[in-house]
Amino acid sequence: MCRWLGYIGGPIEPRELLYDPERSLIEQSRRHAPDMAVPNGDGFGLGWYGRRDVPALFHSDSPAWGDRNLRELAAEISSPLFLAHVRAATGTPVQETSCHPFRHSRWLFVHNGYVAEYDRLRRDLMLAVRPDLFSSIRGTTDSEVMFHLAITFGLPEDPIGGLERMAGFVESLAADTGVAEPPLQMTVGVTDGERLYAARYASGPEANTLHYSADVESLRQLYPADERFAHFSAEARAVVSEPLVELPGLWHEVPAGSAIVVDNGKVEQLPFTPHRPD
Amino acid sequence: MCRWLGYIGGPIEPRELLYDPERSLIEQSRRHAPDMAVPNGDGFGLGWYGRRDVPALFHSDSPAWGDRNLRELAAEISSPLFLAHVRAATGTPVQETSCHPFRHSRWLFVHNGYVAEYDRLRRDLMLAVRPDLFSSIRGTTDSEVMFHLAITFGLPEDPIGGLERMAGFVESLAADTGVAEPPLQMTVGVTDGERLYAARYASGPEANTLHYSADVESLRQLYPADERFAHFSAEARAVVSEPLVELPGLWHEVPAGSAIVVDNGKVEQLPFTPHRPD
Amino acid sequence: MCRWLGYIGGPIEPRELLYDPERSLIEQSRRHAPDMAVPNGDGFGLGWYGRRDVPALFHSDSPAWGDRNLRELAAEISSPLFLAHVRAATGTPVQETSCHPFRHSRWLFVHNGYVAEYDRLRRDLMLAVRPDLFSSIRGTTDSEVMFHLAITFGLPEDPIGGLERMAGFVESLAADTGVAEPPLQMTVGVTDGERLYAARYASGPEANTLHYSADVESLRQLYPADERFAHFSAEARAVVSEPLVELPGLWHEVPAGSAIVVDNGKVEQLPFTPHRPD
Amino acid sequence: MCRWLGYIGGPIEPRELLYDPERSLIEQSRRHAPDMAVPNGDGFGLGWYGRRDVPALFHSDSPAWGDRNLRELAAEISSPLFLAHVRAATGTPVQETSCHPFRHSRWLFVHNGYVAEYDRLRRDLMLAVRPDLFSSIRGTTDSEVMFHLAITFGLPEDPIGGLERMAGFVESLAADTGVAEPPLQMTVGVTDGERLYAARYASGPEANTLHYSADVESLRQLYPADERFAHFSAEARAVVSEPLVELPGLWHEVPAGSAIVVDNGKVEQLPFTPHRPD
Repeated sequence: MCRWLGYIGGPIEPRELLYDPERSLIEQSRRHAPDMAVPNGDGFGLGWYGRRDVPALFHSDSPAWGDRNLRELAAEISSPLFLAHVRAATGTPVQETSCHPFRHSRWLFVHNGYVAEYDRLRRDLMLAVRPDLFSSIRGTTDSEVMFHLAITFGLPEDPIGGLERMAGFVESLAADTGVAEPPLQMTVGVTDGERLYAARYASGPEANTLHYSADVESLRQLYPADERFAHFSAEARAVVSEPLVELPGLWHEVPAGSAIVVDNGKVEQLPFTPHRPD
Repeated sequence: MCRWLGYIGGPIEPRELLYDPERSLIEQSRRHAPDMAVPNGDGFGLGWYGRRDVPALFHSDSPAWGDRNLRELAAEISSPLFLAHVRAATGTPVQETSCHPFRHSRWLFVHNGYVAEYDRLRRDLMLAVRPDLFSSIRGTTDSEVMFHLAITFGLPEDPIGGLERMAGFVESLAADTGVAEPPLQMTVGVTDGERLYAARYASGPEANTLHYSADVESLRQLYPADERFAHFSAEARAVVSEPLVELPGLWHEVPAGSAIVVDNGKVEQLPFTPHRPD
Repeated sequence: MCRWLGYIGGPIEPRELLYDPERSLIEQSRRHAPDMAVPNGDGFGLGWYGRRDVPALFHSDSPAWGDRNLRELAAEISSPLFLAHVRAATGTPVQETSCHPFRHSRWLFVHNGYVAEYDRLRRDLMLAVRPDLFSSIRGTTDSEVMFHLAITFGLPEDPIGGLERMAGFVESLAADTGVAEPPLQMTVGVTDGERLYAARYASGPEANTLHYSADVESLRQLYPADERFAHFSAEARAVVSEPLVELPGLWHEVPAGSAIVVDNGKVEQLPFTPHRPD
Repeated sequence: MCRWLGYIGGPIEPRELLYDPERSLIEQSRRHAPDMAVPNGDGFGLGWYGRRDVPALFHSDSPAWGDRNLRELAAEISSPLFLAHVRAATGTPVQETSCHPFRHSRWLFVHNGYVAEYDRLRRDLMLAVRPDLFSSIRGTTDSEVMFHLAITFGLPEDPIGGLERMAGFVESLAADTGVAEPPLQMTVGVTDGERLYAARYASGPEANTLHYSADVESLRQLYPADERFAHFSAEARAVVSEPLVELPGLWHEVPAGSAIVVDNGKVEQLPFTPHRPD
């Protein structure tokens, strides 16, 4: 199981979410918690929007907790929108091309989950990717192919729809191929640099968790003495696979089978229903 | 806290201890257990005696669990004597020169533990290393300096004595420097290619654990149907920081403040008493 | 341009070819020579037959010249048959899954060269790989796909034939796709642990070089005082992309458009003629 | 031999010097040139001043030419002052803690050269470092110790003087120890975030090269059609171990035994005379 977070709002240093909270993403990657079978030590990535329209990427195949470069970058840069990911490999090699976020022009994508029996489905999944996108698949993870399938199925024009068609395609292929297990487990985060989209879905009954932060104004009223909330901009929102701090009222759970769109501080929740692309 | 194991006996493939047991060293490095605060994902090493008098080394700064090279080697080589180590860094950089085992001519050394406030003591510890050994210190861990101090204090002629004088020196320097915490925590494994030495010691009340396996003949009587014990040679012994399998009668705990010498299947237990070198 | 060597004969330590000669493979990877545009610093690999039927692999994405693990292994192991490769990437990522030799059951494969406009051809080349082999493609290089195509086209039963059909397929696909450049540049080494096969071919007029060593008996007569030739077994042969030492009579050049089979000290030379598989 | 460059002036993207010129630093690290014995493939580093008073660092032990993270960063960040370095190891391990620039509070330091017979001198050089600085030595290169010696001898208050005393100390220790070769070879770059200092010195007759760029106004008059010079700010200056482009009038050579101070577009040249600290 991987872990990830997204931030959108006034510019902050990524360290404020990656390192500073008691259950920061980097701390989660290493410290045992009841939800943790194995550490997230198989590489990590940070994608952020800075001076340019296209996002910048930093990937490493080392554990995030010991990486001095990540610690430097997370304090040096300041960004209004970033995605970070710590990986626990599920069978594919530990290498930088396996690291999230994946990028396609202005888009970034992170994933926590898996395609069941991926080795059996990999060829057919890759064949369904639009041929002109094929050679931009640089690694060998299911996540990267899922992203390219979602683009194939219209993600840039309709992000949630593209993800739904990707999920529907994976499920229908798995059914045709005779995969016995629930084929898809996913929380995903996607952004074009303006809005942050996320979805929580599993073919089976157990879906990996997904949360987003309450609006900053409410948090200030709830915790008037907490300097963190004074510091964050009014429209700031974090989307996380697991809560970064335990604080009543801070986190809203995204229900399984739902997606959210975070736009200028507002969070819209939508149903997420996989369906086979036409 | 690091973890390590040593094996001495008839030649075996290291994978038999590194990968095959339910709580193998590699599994221990990754899977949570009650004794585990953080994973042992900050590099690993394998040192083994093969075709030559001097041992061979394989080190990597990646987590052991995802390393394909280690998996290959552990199945390809066969050795009558090896030491393996998985690291959890305690403040010093994650790099190959920090990886155990450390080697000095025919000797190998592994360590689990730390020198408290090492940054404060480092200069004086390094100064006490015999000047002609100074430039063979290639990394920056406390463990490597402890090994070079033990050599300085006579380890090649008197392994347990050399370790005792090293421990005594560290404790006396810490006292002189005003280190408040108990200064030394250690289990160590040392070998010259013929005997396997190990010690368990802590300046304070809690000492990291150390165990060695019962003699194979007894285990065969205790578990006549277990193929593993039929397979191992009569004089085979494993020394481990934590048990590799839960099996009554398999493991003997080395008491804190004790050392063992494993020689041709026999285990001799000795007191381990740090004392300041003359 | 990559560089590689193969050895077959009485067991030797790989360091005897990797490190010891004046123009050893590792030295070639680093030191400028008139034939060298860029260093071979993008990873390396060693595949060898040891205690088991299947060969062992050691891969790294670091430059070979600074790798302490390779230096250790090359002195510790002794093998009657090995392939070593130093890589200069031609556009695909520097990672272990890009490193040669590639392995398929008992087979090893190394390649020096490229498929022109590989990004354009990659999808169709991968589609032509036998579906049950598809998921064993772990990296993203043209070389790995060439190997899997050769297996698809019968390499295990007919090594040179499998390679010829692979080459024919690449050339015919390139022609169909409108690739303007000569599509294929290759020297390859292949072995099943018993014989060593090699081929030299290019679609255009310039083919990368390939040499094999003269028989040891002749070399002993030619250089009676040279201890190296006294040391090597009578049937020992090396196959190399570039000569390891300058010594008249030592190296035979394999002509472009030719293949060789090295079997028990004998070298058979055959034409290598790509043809499209049926 | 390492290579490095420094830039000071209006903010630019480091890629403009690291990647874009025909003989860019990254190209120099890989492509053969008459002055190049071996590639600079043993790690690299970039240190830059951005949002904070302290500089940020990015280090890697991989070759710079294949590093995707460096390519990203060099295009994403924009900085008025940075130092970049590509390393060719001279005996010490290839690891991130060996990578330049080294940092001490607001200071950055890069070095091209070596201390002759460093293994023999290392202990005495380290002993001469101010004890409270000792534990901030994290790697094992001569360069890092040279930097800490220069700080010990007053670099923060008097940069050129601190370097002269460091050089004098190295030479005098080498003489006392009986080192036969000329003991010191160096070009160094040092900055506190406001000025850029550099020095060129060798104990023997051959000193590694060092150049700085002509003032931008003169270059605009010399090359009125060259868009690069229109783009750079009037006070921009580059200091380089080797010229990045061949263009008459662009580069001034710093004479051996000289130092320069670059301050707000002005370059002051001073003698560099090692002398033993009191």
